[in-house]
Amino acid sequence: MTYSEFLKKRRSVRDYEQKAVGIDVINEILNEATLAPSASNNQPCRFVVINCRETIKRLSDESKANLLKDFEQKKASLSPEYIELLKNDKFNVFYNAPCVIYIVGSKAVHSLEIDCALAASYIMFAAAARGLGTCWIGLGAHIRDPKLKAELGMDENLRIIAPLIIGYPKEIPAASPRNAPKILRVISQVKG
Amino acid sequence: MTYSEFLKKRRSVRDYEQKAVGIDVINEILNEATLAPSASNNQPCRFVVINCRETIKRLSDESKANLLKDFEQKKASLSPEYIELLKNDKFNVFYNAPCVIYIVGSKAVHSLEIDCALAASYIMFAAAARGLGTCWIGLGAHIRDPKLKAELGMDENLRIIAPLIIGYPKEIPAASPRNAPKILRVISQVKG
Repeated sequence: MTYSEFLKKRRSVRDYEQKAVGIDVINEILNEATLAPSASNNQPCRFVVINCRETIKRLSDESKANLLKDFEQKKASLSPEYIELLKNDKFNVFYNAPCVIYIVGSKAVHSLEIDCALAASYIMFAAAARGLGTCWIGLGAHIRDPKLKAELGMDENLRIIAPLIIGYPKEIPAASPRNAPKILRVISQVKG
Repeated sequence: MTYSEFLKKRRSVRDYEQKAVGIDVINEILNEATLAPSASNNQPCRFVVINCRETIKRLSDESKANLLKDFEQKKASLSPEYIELLKNDKFNVFYNAPCVIYIVGSKAVHSLEIDCALAASYIMFAAAARGLGTCWIGLGAHIRDPKLKAELGMDENLRIIAPLIIGYPKEIPAASPRNAPKILRVISQVKG
């Protein structure tokens, strides 16, 4: 398979088989994620692996409740569709995926969002290479309950940047529509 | 080549052949970068391609001067080594690479750093798949001169997130040392 063919297998997947994800394959993927570049090779990413549907359901409930609270207190804007979803008891923000990986890091790291996003892309590709699907679930990052954070091994200095779901896809969906690259300017070499 | 073998070809490259990078291959790479996921498929990334050594030198000079100014005004902390480098007229922050791609986007987009970092990883992989090297150059983002920004096609609402150098590597360096993945917690499925 060429790289361009492989690339098309990395799709955001929201519909998974029941099959659990083995911890060995998660470890392989996280090992490959350490190869992601980070600012000054600072390697600030930390990982939490939640391979348990009950805990994932609690994380979904906590994240939904906090998002709705933020919306009611006008700290967040949410579209009417999202509000409907978040109020629906049956809606799991993690789409009932069997496994969630949180990429987290110290709030003190200036480049944390970028470093974690690069690691996330490595996880998404490493998963695709193993027939696994992933999706970045922005709605799943809003965990504030100190007890729940402690269960995740997270102290108060840590922030969740990338909540990723991972599992065996029922199918690999086609890419959602993409615009052509928006190139503002090409400055070419002057040959003289 | 397996994905794991391919992965090791994506290295931060700072030493390039003189050979220019053709605009066709840049276009191919930017087309593949549009497949990167973005929050709500918002696709906020914009690209500026600087394929001209003179312009790259001016961008390096501008970025160095602004960084040193920030340091003098105590708005930035820099290690003594970096200060030495930035004061050295011969030091080009872009390592004399033949081409620079800026990934930029609207300051109003909340997830801009993450969206651009994901697109950057796609560019770095798409380049590696074509025998090209890349490196994210954090020092190269500090462009403030309105005339220079206008030359780049950037209005005041846009922010540079990812300055990437790209070119044909003299060699693919070995990976710099990586720590094992720091897994804070694994919460496993309770079987009952």
